[in-house]
Amino acid sequence: MKEINGGITSPVGFKSAGIEAGIKESGKRDMALICSNGPTAAAAVFTTNYMQAAPVKLSQEHLKDKAAEAIVINSGNANACTGEQGMIDAKKMTEIAARNLGIDLDKVLVASTGIIGKYLPMEKVKNGIDKLVPVLSETDRWAPEAILTTDDCKKEIAFSFYLPLQNTEVKIGGIAKGSGMIHPEMATMLSFITTDLAIKPELLQEALQEAVEVSFNRISVDGDQSTNDSVYLLANGKAGNKKIVNKDDDYKEFVKVLKKVATYLARSIVADGEGATKFITIKVKGAAIDREAEKMARKIANSPLVKTACFGKDPNWGRIAASAGASGVEFEANKLIIEINDKVLFKAGQPVNYEKEKLEGIMDKKEIEIIVNLQQGSGRAEFWTTDLSYEYIKVNAEYHT
Amino acid sequence: MKEINGGITSPVGFKSAGIEAGIKESGKRDMALICSNGPTAAAAVFTTNYMQAAPVKLSQEHLKDKAAEAIVINSGNANACTGEQGMIDAKKMTEIAARNLGIDLDKVLVASTGIIGKYLPMEKVKNGIDKLVPVLSETDRWAPEAILTTDDCKKEIAFSFYLPLQNTEVKIGGIAKGSGMIHPEMATMLSFITTDLAIKPELLQEALQEAVEVSFNRISVDGDQSTNDSVYLLANGKAGNKKIVNKDDDYKEFVKVLKKVATYLARSIVADGEGATKFITIKVKGAAIDREAEKMARKIANSPLVKTACFGKDPNWGRIAASAGASGVEFEANKLIIEINDKVLFKAGQPVNYEKEKLEGIMDKKEIEIIVNLQQGSGRAEFWTTDLSYEYIKVNAEYHT
Repeated sequence: MKEINGGITSPVGFKSAGIEAGIKESGKRDMALICSNGPTAAAAVFTTNYMQAAPVKLSQEHLKDKAAEAIVINSGNANACTGEQGMIDAKKMTEIAARNLGIDLDKVLVASTGIIGKYLPMEKVKNGIDKLVPVLSETDRWAPEAILTTDDCKKEIAFSFYLPLQNTEVKIGGIAKGSGMIHPEMATMLSFITTDLAIKPELLQEALQEAVEVSFNRISVDGDQSTNDSVYLLANGKAGNKKIVNKDDDYKEFVKVLKKVATYLARSIVADGEGATKFITIKVKGAAIDREAEKMARKIANSPLVKTACFGKDPNWGRIAASAGASGVEFEANKLIIEINDKVLFKAGQPVNYEKEKLEGIMDKKEIEIIVNLQQGSGRAEFWTTDLSYEYIKVNAEYHT
Repeated sequence: MKEINGGITSPVGFKSAGIEAGIKESGKRDMALICSNGPTAAAAVFTTNYMQAAPVKLSQEHLKDKAAEAIVINSGNANACTGEQGMIDAKKMTEIAARNLGIDLDKVLVASTGIIGKYLPMEKVKNGIDKLVPVLSETDRWAPEAILTTDDCKKEIAFSFYLPLQNTEVKIGGIAKGSGMIHPEMATMLSFITTDLAIKPELLQEALQEAVEVSFNRISVDGDQSTNDSVYLLANGKAGNKKIVNKDDDYKEFVKVLKKVATYLARSIVADGEGATKFITIKVKGAAIDREAEKMARKIANSPLVKTACFGKDPNWGRIAASAGASGVEFEANKLIIEINDKVLFKAGQPVNYEKEKLEGIMDKKEIEIIVNLQQGSGRAEFWTTDLSYEYIKVNAEYHT
């Protein structure tokens, strides 16, 4: 596998576009369209939040046949908490796009991100879609920007790889938007991934779930899932391979590359987290099973005490130990080992004593790696998060509805 | 029932003392002793953190017979994450106290709070206990202060009530220390409650658990349980009532007053939370069962987005809705009602529109009440927390190990 230039239009037969429709007050680009030249197998993973936004509900309906051809996206308004009118508006978005593209209504998926509790400005949305279709391009650079809200920079990546059995070249590309949950937006996490692989839709869905589990489900800025979080994956089969129908080595290679794409995008979201000064990697190992490692890593990643300590550049193993202990995962305190940036700080039930100079500067780097070893099995998990800074309070307290 | 002056020494037959032993660098009082004139039934609830501190482990052993006579307490050092030496030191604390008081070793309980990962300065601790015993008094005012760490003010309360069946006067008093988890301390939540009621130890334990469930288990500043959290309850029977041996009306009255004591102390801990500018009450009602209401209230209370919105005085129902939706409790979005300080802001799946002036100032009060109604059953729960402010980041990021 090798990284290649581009993103969602790198795989054969995909076009995209991103334009200003006037939804964002800033005047920045706020609508995007992703389109395959022909039908695709389609997979998606959505927020588990019970307050699902209208576009999430509608896309789930449209995905019943596991097929799609286009995704219409707007930023600046999440169409969330908008009741029945929200559903009507989301449906209208797909209708306008379908008509313009000359495809079936249920082949269009939809995603929205931005302010919640406000109805979509449908006149602007309609004009936006009308504007998007003629500028769809295989070399588009704007879709990754048009999906952003409070993000500082766009997030995209693409890989090319060869199926080991069929020896066919396949491409995967992806874009994402994230940032923490900023007010008044819910700062949805959205990601769109395309590939020219030919694959059975059921396997595509399985592959996506497996990839999301170790990428988008392993990041946290605030710890809350938004009303609109969605990851879409379209596979149009234009690579020309014989359709993958079982979990052979070709499938496994695809999953491997898909995980690379998803992990890169997920980590980019964290790196761009609200008011973040640190990129924190939490590795829990030696757990009884992976799921317990994940549970503990998630708990530590969401601890405001651990996060403020990282902001304050304090190698505070005590807060990590307390958070590990509060995670609900059973372990023996005497076996616990805590390591920060290659220094073992806690072992055999008590702190490791260093001369003060030896620890100076170990928290100065932007990247902080915390390793917690339970020494009881081979379960492991990795989780990524940010520190908790004054800037976080600022962006989240000072914006008003 | 009526509130009376005092705290743990208000019930008949209890003495306490608080002195400076030199454990705290500030020179403030840092050791306390609580003592009954004769044996007591003893109950306790401890942290569920797997990183239990030595005093927690030792007190659990000493409580096997559900009896005690004294509690020795130090602040300034938590004796947590101190391995075997920590256990030896905790045991020595109880030995010194027992010898001084002329009682059995296992009748002494122990509690510590303060810095973690450091061994107790045992010479100072010994001298401290020697100093405490002669000044034990029924009118002591210092124990509530000596147990504090980063708290701004002491927390104590006492009630007198009559057993409805036996018509005997009974007193309950309690003290607590809390504050968020501040660095380098873990800012343990500790509470000590005394009563002169005569009651079967098993019922005392049940009563305490019931009271803790709706008080100390319903507060959160950081969302983490510390290594040392403990609530102790001693009942010495000096009120002269016939021992309560079943859940009759006398028992129920006792539980009612105990809940008042525990709730008052728990709320005082929140009010004194680190860097807090708001006291936030979250009421979830209309849930299928109480436990689900509690789960949702806890999730909302721990949401950094809800907490920063309160700090920013923003009636951000969207963040509350998203947090409710992410709590894992199933509900119908269309039935959800969200109310902040008596204003209904979200209903029937969409926001309630107000003219802007109508909402101005609703978040200005120090007390903020958030009511979430799921309209699906009679389950309800109340939870108390603080906002998340710059000051919180300051106290938690700027102190260094």
